Amino acid sequence: MRVDRLFTDVRLATMAGHRPGLGIVEDGVLATRDGRIAWVGERRDAPLFDAREVIRGEGRWLTPGLVDCHTHLVWAGDRSREFERRLEGASYEEIAREGGGILATVRATRAASFEELVRAALPRLDALLAEGVTTVEIKSGYGLEPATEYRQLATAAALERERAVRIERTFLGAHALPSEFAKDREGYLRLLCDEMIPRVARERLASAVDVFCERIAFSPEETRRVFEAARAHGLRLKLHADQLSDSGGAALAASFAALSADHLEYANAQGVQAMARAGTVAVLLPGAFYCLREKQLPPIESFRRAGVPMAVATDCNPGTSPLQSLLLALNLAATLFRLTVTECLLGVTRNAARALGLEDDRGTLEIGKRADLALWAIERPAELVYWMGARLLSARWVGA
Amino acid sequence: MRVDRLFTDVRLATMAGHRPGLGIVEDGVLATRDGRIAWVGERRDAPLFDAREVIRGEGRWLTPGLVDCHTHLVWAGDRSREFERRLEGASYEEIAREGGGILATVRATRAASFEELVRAALPRLDALLAEGVTTVEIKSGYGLEPATEYRQLATAAALERERAVRIERTFLGAHALPSEFAKDREGYLRLLCDEMIPRVARERLASAVDVFCERIAFSPEETRRVFEAARAHGLRLKLHADQLSDSGGAALAASFAALSADHLEYANAQGVQAMARAGTVAVLLPGAFYCLREKQLPPIESFRRAGVPMAVATDCNPGTSPLQSLLLALNLAATLFRLTVTECLLGVTRNAARALGLEDDRGTLEIGKRADLALWAIERPAELVYWMGARLLSARWVGA
Repeated sequence: MRVDRLFTDVRLATMAGHRPGLGIVEDGVLATRDGRIAWVGERRDAPLFDAREVIRGEGRWLTPGLVDCHTHLVWAGDRSREFERRLEGASYEEIAREGGGILATVRATRAASFEELVRAALPRLDALLAEGVTTVEIKSGYGLEPATEYRQLATAAALERERAVRIERTFLGAHALPSEFAKDREGYLRLLCDEMIPRVARERLASAVDVFCERIAFSPEETRRVFEAARAHGLRLKLHADQLSDSGGAALAASFAALSADHLEYANAQGVQAMARAGTVAVLLPGAFYCLREKQLPPIESFRRAGVPMAVATDCNPGTSPLQSLLLALNLAATLFRLTVTECLLGVTRNAARALGLEDDRGTLEIGKRADLALWAIERPAELVYWMGARLLSARWVGA
Repeated sequence: MRVDRLFTDVRLATMAGHRPGLGIVEDGVLATRDGRIAWVGERRDAPLFDAREVIRGEGRWLTPGLVDCHTHLVWAGDRSREFERRLEGASYEEIAREGGGILATVRATRAASFEELVRAALPRLDALLAEGVTTVEIKSGYGLEPATEYRQLATAAALERERAVRIERTFLGAHALPSEFAKDREGYLRLLCDEMIPRVARERLASAVDVFCERIAFSPEETRRVFEAARAHGLRLKLHADQLSDSGGAALAASFAALSADHLEYANAQGVQAMARAGTVAVLLPGAFYCLREKQLPPIESFRRAGVPMAVATDCNPGTSPLQSLLLALNLAATLFRLTVTECLLGVTRNAARALGLEDDRGTLEIGKRADLALWAIERPAELVYWMGARLLSARWVGA
């Protein structure tokens, strides 16, 4: 069998659904051709290969490249001062008066050029890639006006030309109400639904639309309106749901067959059942939970019992989750949310791909999937969750 | 003025006690000669330098090299299975029956050669160094028998030959009671006090002695006995104090003028006052607090009011803090313990040096101190605490 790259002497965590747990193959072989997995399995079952390149893993673990399925990676400005002021005891009101909060990031992002946004985003992206990430979802949402929203999405697209990584773009114009529309919610919703979403779809600036459905952002009724516009234009749906209060976001996301509902600390029982029926992925974001020092845990046991697939992501953003490590998100998910090691690792591979609608294309080591791969200097897959701040990656390939 | 290295166009966080807060110099210059700081201050006050090498910081921040003043970095074996089992719901009893816990690490460390211990420790050390650490304290305590305790300390010493770093060694033979002495506490205490401590002192295997004073380890009375032996042999003192219960450890450490008392979640008011009087540093270890999901916070506000210097460290160990990032320890200290940014950064520089008795030698940018330096690609020092999992170091020097 003629192939491009042959990986031998590797242990595989295939994450494939037809195998139990992590889909482990202890004495594995994987071969790629034209950027796809051409063969994968036990060495004893392997055909003879004629490979351009042979990579001997020396017993290390090979996994699918990791998928960070929820980030706000592109922004300008610095919120570390706000972090510092909060620790000094400043109230949220004082910080708002000092010009802090999400609108501070909106101001800085509006003022930043495309080149400045690329330059600011690259170190954050590089930190993710250094831990084996090969696909990153990036949302807009710090423009809240057409030009800046499109510039954020164009920046996200440009990152894919700067680095070996796949970027999935999501339009989050409905992240917050911009101050110039403070007295005209209807006007901003029209701008979103009648101008921005049609253009995002027409020019393929993003493949999905997200909404922050929360008392401090958009109501369930407003969310429905944005979702209907997005659906009408053929865009897929994601939802920031039930993070700070129960607004029925989980059920709302499910009723639109959204790819994912994200955060979900306050999701209710009906919402969980609806997500299970709709196949909507629960994207857990323990970085924000940790940084905000939340007490309300997402209903993990209910997701388990109902069979809702769970993913884990960094939520990398300047206000509530300045987290640039997907492996650390796994440790937080295990420690704070009590996800098992298997749930954690499926949550940044198979289920994270599904949260982006890419489950047929990546997230597992199976024939035909993209050859996005990570090789790890570890003895057991659990180490990817157990260690904090360790440097475990040996190498990664995107479309090997 | 003839110097070796000249750092210009840098912002300095000197951490010097004669300046407020972080001792910031916005337009700074630093010069080194013979591995020491020869000049430091404002550019406008600087003399003319004749330097072998000039390093232009392009406005980046220069700080003292960071000091990780409490680690158990040298061990063999893998406890990730235990971590995984706990997440699957296994009880501590089940894990003990499966051979887990601290004695699992003792078994593996006893079985490991010097070379194996070096090989296991290096990646952990490298992770620390990649974040600007230049001094690491390493404790023994996974041998609990003479040969292995000495081998751990020899390994720690060897790391200093393998990498550009300063290692401070602490003898922690009183970490746990080894199982072969389960029915003979007196026998192990005699082995510690009459054989191991004298030899550690005589052969300069360590500069300090530490004890785990806790119901599950050694009593205050036993701790006193070990401390008296250590003091008699000219060794300095540190104490694992009041981590899981109030055993009066803080006051006990202070009564011996120990360099530091570490953990301290359950330290009582008298202990805090005694530490302030004795000048004993409070070493906070938020990694263990986080991993154990503790609820009892150390008495931070009492330390502040009493003027007890606070340090922060990784406590890097396989059971309760598999943490290889000192910057992440800072984020945990801020988020969970509400330390301010200034307290955090003094806690891994000036106060960490003091916790090792090295305050005259390092931990600040002052004339005469060692030229252990870290250069950071950040806009504000607060970013060192604010980000999680970011890669912020531009360069580091040990004895520049």
